[in-house]
Amino acid sequence: MKRFEQGADNLNVLQDAHITLVPGFRAAGVHCGLKKTDASDLALLVSDVPCRAAAVFTKNKVAAAPVLYDRRLLGEHREVAQAVVINSGCANACTGARGLQDAAATARHAAAALGLHPEAVWVMSTGVIGQPLSMDKIVAGIDLAAGQLSASGGHAAAQAIMTTDTRPKEAAVQVDVDGKTCTIAGMCKGAGMIHPNMATMLCVLVTDAVVAPDVLQAALMAAIDRSFNMMTVDGDTSTNDTALLLANGQVGNAEIRDTTGAAYQSFLGGLTQVAAALAKMIAADGEGATKFIEIAVRGARDFAEAKQVGMAIAHSPLVKTAMYGRDANWGRVLCAIGYSGADIDPDRVALWFGDLQLVKQGQPYDVNEERALEILSQKEVRITADLGLGSAEATVWTCDLSHDYVSINAHYRT
Amino acid sequence: MKRFEQGADNLNVLQDAHITLVPGFRAAGVHCGLKKTDASDLALLVSDVPCRAAAVFTKNKVAAAPVLYDRRLLGEHREVAQAVVINSGCANACTGARGLQDAAATARHAAAALGLHPEAVWVMSTGVIGQPLSMDKIVAGIDLAAGQLSASGGHAAAQAIMTTDTRPKEAAVQVDVDGKTCTIAGMCKGAGMIHPNMATMLCVLVTDAVVAPDVLQAALMAAIDRSFNMMTVDGDTSTNDTALLLANGQVGNAEIRDTTGAAYQSFLGGLTQVAAALAKMIAADGEGATKFIEIAVRGARDFAEAKQVGMAIAHSPLVKTAMYGRDANWGRVLCAIGYSGADIDPDRVALWFGDLQLVKQGQPYDVNEERALEILSQKEVRITADLGLGSAEATVWTCDLSHDYVSINAHYRT
Repeated sequence: MKRFEQGADNLNVLQDAHITLVPGFRAAGVHCGLKKTDASDLALLVSDVPCRAAAVFTKNKVAAAPVLYDRRLLGEHREVAQAVVINSGCANACTGARGLQDAAATARHAAAALGLHPEAVWVMSTGVIGQPLSMDKIVAGIDLAAGQLSASGGHAAAQAIMTTDTRPKEAAVQVDVDGKTCTIAGMCKGAGMIHPNMATMLCVLVTDAVVAPDVLQAALMAAIDRSFNMMTVDGDTSTNDTALLLANGQVGNAEIRDTTGAAYQSFLGGLTQVAAALAKMIAADGEGATKFIEIAVRGARDFAEAKQVGMAIAHSPLVKTAMYGRDANWGRVLCAIGYSGADIDPDRVALWFGDLQLVKQGQPYDVNEERALEILSQKEVRITADLGLGSAEATVWTCDLSHDYVSINAHYRT
Repeated sequence: MKRFEQGADNLNVLQDAHITLVPGFRAAGVHCGLKKTDASDLALLVSDVPCRAAAVFTKNKVAAAPVLYDRRLLGEHREVAQAVVINSGCANACTGARGLQDAAATARHAAAALGLHPEAVWVMSTGVIGQPLSMDKIVAGIDLAAGQLSASGGHAAAQAIMTTDTRPKEAAVQVDVDGKTCTIAGMCKGAGMIHPNMATMLCVLVTDAVVAPDVLQAALMAAIDRSFNMMTVDGDTSTNDTALLLANGQVGNAEIRDTTGAAYQSFLGGLTQVAAALAKMIAADGEGATKFIEIAVRGARDFAEAKQVGMAIAHSPLVKTAMYGRDANWGRVLCAIGYSGADIDPDRVALWFGDLQLVKQGQPYDVNEERALEILSQKEVRITADLGLGSAEATVWTCDLSHDYVSINAHYRT
């Protein structure tokens, strides 16, 4: 994963990353029986001291109980966050009043086990929709995890939140903030579930920086906009999507109080780096994916236009199946650019697969099929489109659409 | 196809439909070598007298040469349309100035062969993007087809415009317009190509009604809004989509001059019936489809909201793969409703697969897995969602997403 290891000058990408690389955090991951297999399915993350929290949630109108629960915490208790319980195997979505009660009971039990106030505990769930949480398993899992918390438990936690993910997703950097070396780490889970209901994205980010609550929230939203919001697997927005950022302030920098200035930029740079690395890991590990696809759109009038075009390409099942089949079907990419909704001029569009230019001024340029096949046979493919309209650009990440995607999502319960 | 045979009281659905059921039209379909197989690939439709034309075209900014050519005809020559040349096997898209010259040359040659003015001839193409038309084959094909024109040639024409379609798509009705029995017939081709570049939709509708040009255009747009625009296979809007309506006026009704009144409503009803029947045929024959899916959304505040929700469900690859796998994954449908962009209230949503109610007030109701499997094993599945917000409704058509969809679109050129 060399790609993820290059940072800006003042940014140090940490190897063998896990969330407990940030001093003051402990974690554990255990098996409590929510999954049918013997894989771990409950993660616990605890901070030694209360943290400031920032969070973003799914925009889906059908939001799961833990999302509703955490939204309230963000509104009322964002400066006393100290623990997160995450279960896989059950999304606790479309579960009505009982679902909310179960989310609250989960937080209460973890608080009791850890000696915290209930409002210090956040909850996240991922898995099948429409089934209630097995609270006896959750309770036993929390007790088990509480006994295994450690400053090297990040890997186990990242394992425990996986569903159809094929590998855990962790990233960490260090950045200089106001003369202090601040650590930012994160874990997430991506495109898949035990029961095939949706691609559910959960992400936990932690840092030891001192950041004012509103600024922390702004930084998280800015980082998400340049990372998770630039990535798609299948276009289905989950009911459970949550990204949570906890800042324990232990590094002792002068508090970052606004979104201008070098300290904020440095912090935001590190946070975006971690979030983008995690987002790319989700795309690369999308359900059934055989390759990671990076789509760079440049020459747009503004970022929004570049993103709109990039996302249209990334969503196109015809582009995604062509990538799977290693077919240099550049016409499909041009077609997607055309219907993206952006006001493009077809005669100005240029297109590359890797370093091979296929289209110039909207027409075939150098369609070297042999070289194209070579490029599309790589595990990572870069599509570059130049709209020829301006100087803005955006980069979007996705994966191909394979037979396995259909198998995973069609035949899970049959 | 019993489903398509029920019309309104004053509407007679014709069996063994083809476009030459409308008096005054002749057609032919021939093989000229644009396809690699020996399947027919050029259709010619000719009217005995000049027709009024109405047309709608793709909104894709990357529009194919024949689309650009026909747009000009619609603007300048819409009252003298008399012939249509349609080739499959090559989309004549992304072909620049040469593409436009080839479209014009096609029209000129057909005009010469038929003794018409060039501006009386419309052209359509479907197939691979980015390759020039083989004009020698086109010319030979036109000459061959001109010699085979007949009043029973509609079927041959519908065959010749197919690409990866597995069957031709034809429909016809008769309606009473102002005391005269007016015939409306159509043919189209749907979701597939010889080379796998896109889903390209072409549709030709013909009638013998007398309709003022602006009213004819309004009727076509209204009919398309309730038929082709309610259907999706893979969400990719083609560069070549064209629907053309020719009215030869031979039935001699009093000219329909505005969009109010019984005659217009009767004509629009028949036109919409034919267009909707064709649109359903495209969905049912979508690439790799194993089943036809009708999504009825009701209880919406207005039609646009109902359509927005229906289209979100129809676009969801998770819903479409679940249908393929006969998996009663109602949570995916709820999830799609939630992210559709409509301002829904999850607690009011009800959901049915066939006549089996799975969700009531946003929560599981009667999840009878055995009965659900029975329903999802049919070749036609109806999903009904009630939003509980109002009294508007919309019906959307699509198909499932199968392994064959991936195979057709991934491995065509390898």
